[in-house]
Amino acid sequence: MSLRTILQLRYVARHRVVSFTPIAIRNFSEDKSGDQHQRWTRNWKITGTMLLGSVLVGSAITDQTKQKLKLSKQERAEPFEAGAKRPDLPTFRAEEVSKHDTKKSFWVTYKHGVYDVTKFLPSHPGGEQILNAAGLSIEPFWNVYGMHKTQEVFRLLEAYRIGNLHDDDVVDHSDEELWVKEPYRDKRLIVHTAKPFNAEIPPQYQAAHFDTPNELFYVRQHMPVPDIEAASHRVRVTVRSSGSERERSFSLAELDKFPRLAVRAALMCAGNRRSEMHEVKPVKGINWAGGAISNAVWEGVSLRDVLIHCGVDIEHTEGQHVIFTGADIDATGVNFSTSIPLHMAADPSSRIVLATHMNGRALPPDHGYPLRVVVPGAPAVRSVKWLESITVSTEESPSHWHQKDYRAFNPSKTWETADFATAPPVYSLPVTSAFCDPQDGDTVRAKNGHILLKGYAYSGGGAKILRVDVSADQGKTWIEATPAAVDPAPHKQHYSWTLWAATVPAPKGQKEVELWVKATDSNFNTQPERFDDIWNIRGILSNAYHRIKVKVQH
Amino acid sequence: MSLRTILQLRYVARHRVVSFTPIAIRNFSEDKSGDQHQRWTRNWKITGTMLLGSVLVGSAITDQTKQKLKLSKQERAEPFEAGAKRPDLPTFRAEEVSKHDTKKSFWVTYKHGVYDVTKFLPSHPGGEQILNAAGLSIEPFWNVYGMHKTQEVFRLLEAYRIGNLHDDDVVDHSDEELWVKEPYRDKRLIVHTAKPFNAEIPPQYQAAHFDTPNELFYVRQHMPVPDIEAASHRVRVTVRSSGSERERSFSLAELDKFPRLAVRAALMCAGNRRSEMHEVKPVKGINWAGGAISNAVWEGVSLRDVLIHCGVDIEHTEGQHVIFTGADIDATGVNFSTSIPLHMAADPSSRIVLATHMNGRALPPDHGYPLRVVVPGAPAVRSVKWLESITVSTEESPSHWHQKDYRAFNPSKTWETADFATAPPVYSLPVTSAFCDPQDGDTVRAKNGHILLKGYAYSGGGAKILRVDVSADQGKTWIEATPAAVDPAPHKQHYSWTLWAATVPAPKGQKEVELWVKATDSNFNTQPERFDDIWNIRGILSNAYHRIKVKVQH
Repeated sequence: MSLRTILQLRYVARHRVVSFTPIAIRNFSEDKSGDQHQRWTRNWKITGTMLLGSVLVGSAITDQTKQKLKLSKQERAEPFEAGAKRPDLPTFRAEEVSKHDTKKSFWVTYKHGVYDVTKFLPSHPGGEQILNAAGLSIEPFWNVYGMHKTQEVFRLLEAYRIGNLHDDDVVDHSDEELWVKEPYRDKRLIVHTAKPFNAEIPPQYQAAHFDTPNELFYVRQHMPVPDIEAASHRVRVTVRSSGSERERSFSLAELDKFPRLAVRAALMCAGNRRSEMHEVKPVKGINWAGGAISNAVWEGVSLRDVLIHCGVDIEHTEGQHVIFTGADIDATGVNFSTSIPLHMAADPSSRIVLATHMNGRALPPDHGYPLRVVVPGAPAVRSVKWLESITVSTEESPSHWHQKDYRAFNPSKTWETADFATAPPVYSLPVTSAFCDPQDGDTVRAKNGHILLKGYAYSGGGAKILRVDVSADQGKTWIEATPAAVDPAPHKQHYSWTLWAATVPAPKGQKEVELWVKATDSNFNTQPERFDDIWNIRGILSNAYHRIKVKVQH
Repeated sequence: MSLRTILQLRYVARHRVVSFTPIAIRNFSEDKSGDQHQRWTRNWKITGTMLLGSVLVGSAITDQTKQKLKLSKQERAEPFEAGAKRPDLPTFRAEEVSKHDTKKSFWVTYKHGVYDVTKFLPSHPGGEQILNAAGLSIEPFWNVYGMHKTQEVFRLLEAYRIGNLHDDDVVDHSDEELWVKEPYRDKRLIVHTAKPFNAEIPPQYQAAHFDTPNELFYVRQHMPVPDIEAASHRVRVTVRSSGSERERSFSLAELDKFPRLAVRAALMCAGNRRSEMHEVKPVKGINWAGGAISNAVWEGVSLRDVLIHCGVDIEHTEGQHVIFTGADIDATGVNFSTSIPLHMAADPSSRIVLATHMNGRALPPDHGYPLRVVVPGAPAVRSVKWLESITVSTEESPSHWHQKDYRAFNPSKTWETADFATAPPVYSLPVTSAFCDPQDGDTVRAKNGHILLKGYAYSGGGAKILRVDVSADQGKTWIEATPAAVDPAPHKQHYSWTLWAATVPAPKGQKEVELWVKATDSNFNTQPERFDDIWNIRGILSNAYHRIKVKVQH
């Protein structure tokens, strides 16, 4: 990330502090440290956790406040945002709101709304971190994470409404500055959230290209896209061991002196196909269909080579991790970060690339320009974009994204009982498959009593897809699909997806057909039949059979 | 295999030829080559395929001769062997039988029975190879493969009965000589077939030892156990490439000069838990419960080191295979053999051992004394016992065991439609788990309203077990088991099983409980719920949830 961009973001942040309500300013000026910026950073840092925590709000809703949220079908259909003026309620000054900043009386504001959320505190998934928003507007905290702004969360908040904030104290927390530099996106992408930008590739384009065109590659952002100048970009490599710390940094030109490495690899979000799991029982997260996976050739240099060059002992990896940090910054000023075990980086068959190119072209901004680490076979979250630093450490990344997300639980773990500290981080992905063409609900024309199906299959950790089976009669008969495109990668390095095609019978008179698909990989693992027994609070690893219904024209 | 043993087996074989019926001798003497032994060898070689083919007879029964085999419950319960004298039928001389040796009239004998199996020929799974038994006794061909001697096959044969063989022509084909050297076996093993010896470890002993005591390790033999002298044993390493062939051989003392390597690894038969798949729809093979897996420390030298020493280019492995040949010989004189891709042997993380020791002691005869290749993470069939030769070749092993078995098919493939030539050989194993204690049907005593469960979990290819979940309410609630014993192996080298324990509620008044278990491995693959959709003709890769019912005493 360029210094220019950092300054720009900080300007935006400070500008917001200045434009805060008098209450907020009073808070800052009362801070004993006297350092407004420090206090602000601390506040946002802690609140960042809360913001992430609020992704978890769904389960709290289910458990604690169901009665408050009995929405009719009509209500659900109407767009609703919290914080409109309510003439039936009393008006409060921001100063009054700010006094309710304890567990015994805890108020927040959102636009014109004043809320007493005291009773909500015990069920806040982020725990006591919510206390940092005491007596303040929650709007700036929510602006960065667009996914908060859902009907459900707005209605939950509104259920705690007690009054209106005085007109003079309402501040415009518009977040446009943060997003003004977002890149142009292809209109064919299916957008789930605009800020941050999360969009999937339409299934027919998955099946149409073995290597997904860059502009159609699905996009998963956690924050605004940083604007980085390649010429001045450097990546820092820090090696921490037994108290000492060595640091080197490389410009892109310096990195380019290492041998070039190109790896064909699919990247898939751990939450791909979450929407199907969501149907069993609601889960929190972007409601991905099957379009959070695409395939590309990633070219750059080998992370392993760079680590060896920096003196990392790749023969002794036990208990060590490689932390990747991106230039994207959350509302708390914390950079996106996650880590992988050092043994993954040390293993030459992992083929981890510090990539500058995607399908022969410079990385697009949405995919990490000018430098992205690509960890083939792992959930895409580990392939950190806009890579700024690499740290070899005895600790995993301390970030929220690493510690509080992308971990696996069984179906009985709730947000209350799930222990993220002991749950295994997801570093590989199970075998999966999906129909791309036709899609659920499509009408297809039968030819000679048969219909043609196309789709993808993928397995993480370098496993190869050995077989794809489809059924048009609910499992009574399985028909082996034909691979349409397979990368001839070496053993244990099968990081691409497999595209397949199959022709199944659609007997005359059959107007609708339910189609199932499942894949088997080179470890002979196959997919579970149903989502029920793999369900998990975060809706990840959603790899049961893909089932669609299509209408048939004869 | 020692020369002594080979000579001994050949003596037995020749002795049989000499003691053949006059018809058989006449056939040999008419052979144009004039070389009885050659003819005999050819006969047995071809018939060996037929014998293997007869493992497949079950499907032929189902498809072709159902009406002949409508057995009552009572009939099934009665022990029955073909070939008893039938006073109601005519008597034939062996010479007469021998004339019926064409497809138009095809007779065979078994003890006192004479059979016209002409109509069975088209449905013989081994195809035309059956013709080699034309007009002869089938008994010597069946003696080596004890699994032929089942109620089902005897009754199928008897359905074609036409007469009795004259008393003077009946020969004793007793097979004792072949099996006289079998080692002593622990009486606690659960024997499935005595000749060859196939026996599983009782589940309670699986759970009781992380490393299975040698005498309780499950045994899977294809043939009689060879009797080998370690002092004179040599293993031949042949490297075939572009027309040339280099050969070296090593005594055990010479092998011992390579660096020692010890690997803790479970070995599991690809057919482990076949009996559960069999319940969905019959499959052919030994009816293993969950006891065809055990764990041990294997010590010896690295196959990779030996291959490098022999000049194998382990950087270029594409399209090459390593064929392992054992000293065990089938009825045709063919040694047991199978192969793995060279890339597996070249990968140091595969940790393939030429093992001389098992749990710190010399290999027992049943486990390959004095030398066995152990291929961790692969189905145990690849871990060839009594290793005589290693061949690097551009071809996979041509043996029946490699070409016609241990390959994966979808549930709709039948013996008629399955194409073994294009089906992938099984070189790894999917994630699985099982209860060991209690077992299905046991009565357990609840303590404080809970019962204790123990079991194992395993995944092939070096994947680690990350989680084991059990359910006592048919999947409504999943309880995470606690690892009881886990080997701290490096990344991708997790070749041991995992033993686990779990405590589940058994509420007062509940007299019976159905228990489910499933495991998740480090690629986040998990088990399929049911066997229906992973069913395959050979009953391998049988890894759906393990479900048992136990009675509870409060």
